[in-house]
Amino acid sequence: MSLLSVGTVAFDEIETPFGKSGKILGGAAPYISLAASKLGVQTNIVSVVGDDFPDDYLNILKENHCNTDGIKKIPEGKTFFWAGKYHMDMNFRDTLRTDLNVLENFKPELSETYQKPEVVMLGNLHPKVQMEIIEQLDNRPFIIMDTMNYWMDRTWDELMAVMKRVDVLSINDEEARQMSEEYSLKKAANKILTMGPKFLIIKKGEHGALLFGGDEVFFAPALPLEEVFDPTGAGDTFAGGFSGHLADTLDFSFENMKRAVIYGSALASFTVEKFGVQRLLEINELDIQNRIDKFKKLSYFDLD
Amino acid sequence: MSLLSVGTVAFDEIETPFGKSGKILGGAAPYISLAASKLGVQTNIVSVVGDDFPDDYLNILKENHCNTDGIKKIPEGKTFFWAGKYHMDMNFRDTLRTDLNVLENFKPELSETYQKPEVVMLGNLHPKVQMEIIEQLDNRPFIIMDTMNYWMDRTWDELMAVMKRVDVLSINDEEARQMSEEYSLKKAANKILTMGPKFLIIKKGEHGALLFGGDEVFFAPALPLEEVFDPTGAGDTFAGGFSGHLADTLDFSFENMKRAVIYGSALASFTVEKFGVQRLLEINELDIQNRIDKFKKLSYFDLD
Repeated sequence: MSLLSVGTVAFDEIETPFGKSGKILGGAAPYISLAASKLGVQTNIVSVVGDDFPDDYLNILKENHCNTDGIKKIPEGKTFFWAGKYHMDMNFRDTLRTDLNVLENFKPELSETYQKPEVVMLGNLHPKVQMEIIEQLDNRPFIIMDTMNYWMDRTWDELMAVMKRVDVLSINDEEARQMSEEYSLKKAANKILTMGPKFLIIKKGEHGALLFGGDEVFFAPALPLEEVFDPTGAGDTFAGGFSGHLADTLDFSFENMKRAVIYGSALASFTVEKFGVQRLLEINELDIQNRIDKFKKLSYFDLD
Repeated sequence: MSLLSVGTVAFDEIETPFGKSGKILGGAAPYISLAASKLGVQTNIVSVVGDDFPDDYLNILKENHCNTDGIKKIPEGKTFFWAGKYHMDMNFRDTLRTDLNVLENFKPELSETYQKPEVVMLGNLHPKVQMEIIEQLDNRPFIIMDTMNYWMDRTWDELMAVMKRVDVLSINDEEARQMSEEYSLKKAANKILTMGPKFLIIKKGEHGALLFGGDEVFFAPALPLEEVFDPTGAGDTFAGGFSGHLADTLDFSFENMKRAVIYGSALASFTVEKFGVQRLLEINELDIQNRIDKFKKLSYFDLD
């Protein structure tokens, strides 16, 4: 099993009704790869940081089965910075600040050891960057991509070109509606599945996630939690759990993808319990198994 | 099995992005009792209409296992009228007009044959009216109640008195948050379950429904539909399917209540496909069974 994960590595500063995080480790790649590592999968990370990025953060990743050789450190560069604020309805947030910094000129380069992954998770980045990754691959792995409305507005054609090269698209409900110009998520899914990917995941935050593929549809609920402390990284953790399970099993059937969705949802339900990757770092295999049992109990019914 | 259903019988006039209904049969009681009748359960309806209410509408109910003897016709009275408009996001609607008419002075009276039901579904009405029903009962049946924020704002004490006499409260997520003053639905549920009812259903529209009881929680997804044509009555149909299944089985365990939630969700998924009760009137047992199989497939996963 081998997972290649491409995504931002960042500083985040988060404010929620429950507190302020200060400047902490953030970005898609840490959530993706730490989630995958919790399923025993090693991730090769491709990303970029500035020379203000502390070794301590890199060590956290290294200690958790992440290969950080592909995280390029730009001399005199500054690391991508994002600040945001959540209100009681955590499905929405205000972005207070986005400094792209070294991300602006990010040209990913895959070293030889990175070029033959079995599964690739393309985090939300400029479609040009996502395409550069795909074109450097030596094989044709199973590819999952994330994106956002920002790229739909600005780089539609480039985005569509990437879409034609991937197996799974993972976006949220608002993005699915924008991409398809359909309000009904069922109609949206039907349309998006003609644009390239064979499978579509629609993330609905506290309302769970839908998986579409062919004529099939699967719904994974989100666990009703006492408190969502900080939703930052929930989507990326989901992506990490999802792609991690696929890299672990190399079974790309719809049935196994359903399991991957459950792993992703379970891991994401931990991430939101504390700021940043803190909670992900604390949990062990038993915690995950217990959480998955809760998911099973939550949605299981028997009519006989 | 016997189900007593108390709720409005009304004229509705509905506008959605897909069309206008004109003046049609509406109100909670028809949806509740027609849904229950689809599960083979006869409902004794208690309600009030004006003498402008057509016999044709009463006949629709009579032909579908509904006892309409308890629908009082007020001479020279006018039937409750509601007009509303939905936009693309059908989770929200604008009320264009509400004429309470005969509902304003509704004093329910239970005839002798109505006084010993096994299950009671108290539709969304003034808590005073709900209490008058409870006090006329000769036995202590299993009681489910609906309510809304309107009554929380205006008749809190009366509402709380009713809450102490019922087994299940069925409300939507916004109402659960208002009633509990908690944003987290899990916390909201914990608090509401100390106010009287042993079970709580939180309806989340297109995002499904949650059932809470003791330490247990169950989530039923809503089926992703190509098109929600008209959501009016979905909540009442859910209540009818839920209470109908309980009246049919007289098993009030959490396990069976989960099944009742699925029956309610399945029936509601038909109601939204056409205006008013039209779709409910068309479907048969096989349609319902097929829809329930879809629900099962939608949320079933196996980790082994």
